[in-house]
Amino acid sequence: MSEFPQTDLNKVKRLPKRGQYDKKTIYQIVDEALICHVGFVLEGQPFVMPTIHVRIDDTIYLHGAVANRMLTHIKAGNNVCLTMTLIDGIVFARSVFHHNMNYRSAVLFGKGSVIEDYDEKWNIFKALTEHIAKGRWNDARKPTEQETNITTIVAIDIDSASAKIRTGPAKDDEEDYTLSIWAGVMPVQMQFGNPISDEQLAQEIHVPEYILNYKR
Amino acid sequence: MSEFPQTDLNKVKRLPKRGQYDKKTIYQIVDEALICHVGFVLEGQPFVMPTIHVRIDDTIYLHGAVANRMLTHIKAGNNVCLTMTLIDGIVFARSVFHHNMNYRSAVLFGKGSVIEDYDEKWNIFKALTEHIAKGRWNDARKPTEQETNITTIVAIDIDSASAKIRTGPAKDDEEDYTLSIWAGVMPVQMQFGNPISDEQLAQEIHVPEYILNYKR
Repeated sequence: MSEFPQTDLNKVKRLPKRGQYDKKTIYQIVDEALICHVGFVLEGQPFVMPTIHVRIDDTIYLHGAVANRMLTHIKAGNNVCLTMTLIDGIVFARSVFHHNMNYRSAVLFGKGSVIEDYDEKWNIFKALTEHIAKGRWNDARKPTEQETNITTIVAIDIDSASAKIRTGPAKDDEEDYTLSIWAGVMPVQMQFGNPISDEQLAQEIHVPEYILNYKR
Repeated sequence: MSEFPQTDLNKVKRLPKRGQYDKKTIYQIVDEALICHVGFVLEGQPFVMPTIHVRIDDTIYLHGAVANRMLTHIKAGNNVCLTMTLIDGIVFARSVFHHNMNYRSAVLFGKGSVIEDYDEKWNIFKALTEHIAKGRWNDARKPTEQETNITTIVAIDIDSASAKIRTGPAKDDEEDYTLSIWAGVMPVQMQFGNPISDEQLAQEIHVPEYILNYKR
């Protein structure tokens, strides 16, 4: 399956032409996003928490401390919503009404389970580390058995998902194009600055290439 | 009240020393964030949607089309969670285990209601526009009566909230500091690029100062 079926759950209802359902489009957003926002429900109350994630095939993995309330709830098999949002620009139209954002967002639905297998946990640690920075896993000191045991990893199989994307210039009402008002797009992106080496670093240790050339 | 009482709802449970409850700290994050992620529950299913917001005093305002499912649900008075996340850096520790992010996040809880009053809607349109870019409201073509009527605005009074903040360098286990592994922080920020003027713009219209000097 290369596309998620459109159901009441994932269908983009507002501006449906912006909705996309193919995995390629959705997963590009998922993978580019450094973090996601996790939605879950405790006794009817919605919670939204930011966290890092990684995708392997059609599954999203989250991790945290064993006592983490969110992960405890997710691993019990409850419904979860995961949203990744990339902001690409602020769209200044001539009219207040048509102001907008250029963005790419992915909304994923699924249920959680816990990963107990030691080797599988190790593989996911690697994937999470590489999601943050490709190349880091080989360099860094790997997790100990104790670190592995005190970390919970949950898997969320993606049952349903959609992407919503807006690109391009401002769109004004026809009669507004003659107004003497500036309109345009201000590009927005996540900027990664010059790495600040740790003060306690031995002097001979240089910043690795994958950090110097970091991009997403 | 300058601080939200710590309850089971808003208390930062993981790493409680990172939790903050004073309005000043929380509202700085709310106001700096361009967008928020809105969590709500429909028939037990959590949803998380990105949208722009604005805060006036202790209330968050969201807007959208009259038919918007999220707003219809919120204006009915249901529980909402609003999360704003600012990423300030990627923290590379020597050990995989101590990798981290520098971030500032705010998690707000409240119930919604709808704004019907025409003048109040107008004021919130102004606040939303100024949240996106200070100075834009005076320049842009104001909403018409019809545009105002087809836009729903919901208010969410903040009943409870907390912020969670991490700053500073990587923290490794004592015995790892001697390892030959680079550690440090890569600063992350939202970057606003050079504005791209609309192609259909009359030539004499220059980019406004508040766009050229844009920052958050």
